[in-house]
Amino acid sequence: MTAVKSSDGLVPLRDIEAAAERIRGTVVRTPMVPDFDLSETVGGQVRLKCESLQKTGSFKARGAANFLMQLSPDELKRGVITYSSGNHAQAVAFAAGLTGTRAVVVMPTTAPEVKSEGARRLGARVEFAGTTSEHRRVRAEEIAEREGQVMVPPFDHPWIVAGAGTVALEVFEDWPEADTLLVPVGGGGQIAGCAAALRRLKPQSTIIGVEPTGAPTMRRALDAGAPATLERVDTIADGLAPTRAGDLTFAHAAAFLDDVVLVEDDDIRRAAAHLITRRGLVAEYSGAAAVAALLRGRVPAAGRRVCAVLSGGNLDTSLLGEILDAAAEPAR
Amino acid sequence: MTAVKSSDGLVPLRDIEAAAERIRGTVVRTPMVPDFDLSETVGGQVRLKCESLQKTGSFKARGAANFLMQLSPDELKRGVITYSSGNHAQAVAFAAGLTGTRAVVVMPTTAPEVKSEGARRLGARVEFAGTTSEHRRVRAEEIAEREGQVMVPPFDHPWIVAGAGTVALEVFEDWPEADTLLVPVGGGGQIAGCAAALRRLKPQSTIIGVEPTGAPTMRRALDAGAPATLERVDTIADGLAPTRAGDLTFAHAAAFLDDVVLVEDDDIRRAAAHLITRRGLVAEYSGAAAVAALLRGRVPAAGRRVCAVLSGGNLDTSLLGEILDAAAEPAR
Repeated sequence: MTAVKSSDGLVPLRDIEAAAERIRGTVVRTPMVPDFDLSETVGGQVRLKCESLQKTGSFKARGAANFLMQLSPDELKRGVITYSSGNHAQAVAFAAGLTGTRAVVVMPTTAPEVKSEGARRLGARVEFAGTTSEHRRVRAEEIAEREGQVMVPPFDHPWIVAGAGTVALEVFEDWPEADTLLVPVGGGGQIAGCAAALRRLKPQSTIIGVEPTGAPTMRRALDAGAPATLERVDTIADGLAPTRAGDLTFAHAAAFLDDVVLVEDDDIRRAAAHLITRRGLVAEYSGAAAVAALLRGRVPAAGRRVCAVLSGGNLDTSLLGEILDAAAEPAR
Repeated sequence: MTAVKSSDGLVPLRDIEAAAERIRGTVVRTPMVPDFDLSETVGGQVRLKCESLQKTGSFKARGAANFLMQLSPDELKRGVITYSSGNHAQAVAFAAGLTGTRAVVVMPTTAPEVKSEGARRLGARVEFAGTTSEHRRVRAEEIAEREGQVMVPPFDHPWIVAGAGTVALEVFEDWPEADTLLVPVGGGGQIAGCAAALRRLKPQSTIIGVEPTGAPTMRRALDAGAPATLERVDTIADGLAPTRAGDLTFAHAAAFLDDVVLVEDDDIRRAAAHLITRRGLVAEYSGAAAVAALLRGRVPAAGRRVCAVLSGGNLDTSLLGEILDAAAEPAR
């Protein structure tokens, strides 16, 4: 298990292209669909890259498949382990099935049932530990130490970043005229991979990350020049709430991004409502953040061709009530 | 305004291909996405052709665009009129905008607000008349007589059928290995066009229509050898509830279909719930009928490659509560 890095430590385009080749046929080449209402609202062209329709319901299947498919037979014999708020856990469970190995996933005690059940249904052993990304990382490392599994990091690894970057390859293939890419940011794996791909394929692109105001890990890291652990995160977007950006993902953000903007939880609720009521797509809160940034005018979009990544669809459907309430309220 | 018919009165493949060429770029080339859970349930491969992501939220945009784009400048000057439970109304309103004409749409007093508001927002003048397809047809003809608009029939016209048939062209292009096509049936325009395309492109295909038990117009027409007006229709699927199949659409069904199967309203609710909770797609009840047939084992699917057309997504979101209740109930 050796990851080839480029001399600057950033994932090279060829590794993302190799990842696309490797995982082709095992994951979904997800559709990109126009959002007519949102286009009218912002005065530009908006299309949604629907990773909500990906296997396991989020983009995470790409990185997990790209990682596990590079493990040796000996490593696969040891099994794999990971820690995750949920989507990466399901993705690793899926990739374990794909490669004939077993997965242990450590999730927070607060994980939405749709995600823990999803991982179980895919054959994973699910362990619960604490509420923060640190809690579950520590537990996963303890288990791996005792039982010998290979650790599959949730975002801060070049294979995970390269897998996530295949999203942007498809965006570029399907809509080369797009000039702006918006990606929700949790640990930063998806924005790192997408930016690493698109900045090389179309250097003049505008590439912007979107974080909740309650978990601005990448924004703070960019402002401070290095990642730091936030004492407290507070957002409804469980997938965007790691307490610290990755070192590798931060390096990509610093090298490639035009901006990271912040959105309120209310904006995210309203974005999820927009997607359900006006576009017929179910996004989880974390997946709706880029759309929230557009709806709230947080990013330049007038006259532009904007692709917003709808990064996941594993919504806890008990939230539909509050989402529809959000749809009924006027924006502040 | 002259429609070329083939000698047998059936829409020829070349007219559907011409329709595809004509409407390209004005409507969405909709994605087809795998449904992993449903595939597992039925023991086959199931993909969903997402006309819910079509412009105006249903396949109807295709036929309306194909119709209005063939009108002469003089006809367009007169304006157009139609009668519809809602989706065709929105589609004609959209196509009127496309071709620079004005649309009047006659909808039932019971039309879901999402559909009447949709037509208004697209610039149509909305009139309400009665509750059945007969009521609104009569009113539309009165208005057209008085005001001179060109009538755009909701389904029983070769241009409408040809436009709807472009759905099957795309299915065949994207998944030539598919062996079974399932299409919800209201007046029969979509099944007629899809069958007319696919039966010629891949003669050995299994092509099946799906109707609600409470509005079995095409099933009855096939059994009786001719369409007849049902005294009463009763289904939650408002788009599948015309009281009579079309003459032209019936002729296509008789010539091309393997079967028309029936599903209960409860099955349809459960299918809509499945799509939202397990696949992240919002379908209206009418659009979920083909999925309902799969979930209830009403069609052969084991070992097959099945494309189910998810024909529309204009769900009245006040129904989400009852849909999620349906998801929680075990199937009978």
